[in-house]
Amino acid sequence: MGNRPLDILNDALNTSVIVRLKGTREFRGILQGYDVHMNLVLEEAEELSEGEVVRKIGGVVIRGDNVVYVSP
Amino acid sequence: MGNRPLDILNDALNTSVIVRLKGTREFRGILQGYDVHMNLVLEEAEELSEGEVVRKIGGVVIRGDNVVYVSP
Amino acid sequence: MGNRPLDILNDALNTSVIVRLKGTREFRGILQGYDVHMNLVLEEAEELSEGEVVRKIGGVVIRGDNVVYVSP
Amino acid sequence: MGNRPLDILNDALNTSVIVRLKGTREFRGILQGYDVHMNLVLEEAEELSEGEVVRKIGGVVIRGDNVVYVSP
Amino acid sequence: MGNRPLDILNDALNTSVIVRLKGTREFRGILQGYDVHMNLVLEEAEELSEGEVVRKIGGVVIRGDNVVYVSP
Amino acid sequence: MGNRPLDILNDALNTSVIVRLKGTREFRGILQGYDVHMNLVLEEAEELSEGEVVRKIGGVVIRGDNVVYVSP
Amino acid sequence: MGNRPLDILNDALNTSVIVRLKGTREFRGILQGYDVHMNLVLEEAEELSEGEVVRKIGGVVIRGDNVVYVSP
Repeated sequence: MGNRPLDILNDALNTSVIVRLKGTREFRGILQGYDVHMNLVLEEAEELSEGEVVRKIGGVVIRGDNVVYVSP
Repeated sequence: MGNRPLDILNDALNTSVIVRLKGTREFRGILQGYDVHMNLVLEEAEELSEGEVVRKIGGVVIRGDNVVYVSP
Repeated sequence: MGNRPLDILNDALNTSVIVRLKGTREFRGILQGYDVHMNLVLEEAEELSEGEVVRKIGGVVIRGDNVVYVSP
Repeated sequence: MGNRPLDILNDALNTSVIVRLKGTREFRGILQGYDVHMNLVLEEAEELSEGEVVRKIGGVVIRGDNVVYVSP
Repeated sequence: MGNRPLDILNDALNTSVIVRLKGTREFRGILQGYDVHMNLVLEEAEELSEGEVVRKIGGVVIRGDNVVYVSP
Repeated sequence: MGNRPLDILNDALNTSVIVRLKGTREFRGILQGYDVHMNLVLEEAEELSEGEVVRKIGGVVIRGDNVVYVSP
Repeated sequence: MGNRPLDILNDALNTSVIVRLKGTREFRGILQGYDVHMNLVLEEAEELSEGEVVRKIGGVVIRGDNVVYVSP
């Protein structure tokens, strides 16, 4: 199965990631945790819309079923 | 897995959180409980739309599959 | 996990609740029962749209995956 | 859990029910059977749209994930 | 549970059925098989749109999650 | 259960099939494999839109939850 | 079951693939890993829209439920 998706998330812990959600929402933040559903924990998170920061959120728990991709 | 998503929810019990739902709905309230589906219990909850309070609800049980994110 | 969502529903048995569904539909009625999928049983139920009663239904079984929130 | 949703369906066997589906579709018919997914069997079923009978179907098996509510 | 939904499909084997799908698509054909997901096998199938035959398909395997109802 | 859906797919291995997806997309190709989720493997696949070939893809793995029907 | 879908993904490891997502998004990149949900890991990934590269992403973990097809 090569480098499994959750292993890649594990390698990305404590680094900055981009999280693209269904619709147009996107987050940038420090990946603090995840689980098997791809629920994610970000710190110092910013919500972006079309590349612009629209809101600073701080800590956030994202429900996995909204995720399109995570880019370390 | 770092700080797991449900652990973060546990740390947020009895504090104020923002809950963003699919669509444009958003809640602010005191997190009183949750379960593995990310079903949530809020007290002193307010429903917001585009940052404005549109309804005061008091206690509410939110079904987890509507949740986009929870921000402690 | 604090006060778990299904425990809150249990506490609300035989009292009046508001049930918000996906889309614009909303029900008000006496909560008679529920299960782990958040399927709900209401008695003396009324369907509301934008705060107005649009239909009196009496008893109704609501399938849980339509539920956004239940407010006791 | 009070009166559980499937028990209510059981009590409604062989009586006339209204079944509201996602979208605008609605059925009226005699409930002949159901299962844990809330798949339903109706006899003498009529499809309604905005309260008007648009088609008489006779017997029909409805897949549960389309159901919003069943009203005995 | 009365006459269970899958039993009704079993009784309908080798007879003509109407299969309504999500959206506007509808099939008419001889039910040759099914499984617990309500995946269906039709033979001599025709695709209809608003009551008109738009395509003759012959044999077809329909994935159950598209099904709204099956009418024997 | 008659001729079960996955048995029909098995009979169709190494023959040309049409695969209709949700939305307007459609594929034609040689069925090389499948699994219980109705994930499919096609070879010599062409993507069609309203009956016209819009792209030749060669080999392709289609995720089952997009499938409306497979016609051998 | 012929050549099973996940086996085809395994054969495609370390080669360039096209990943079509629901909506109009498409990725091209080197397949580095996958799992049973069809979650995918791409390296040197590019996001395309209507055949044009709109963003270079580098490494990316794609959540499987967004995938329409993977073409090796």
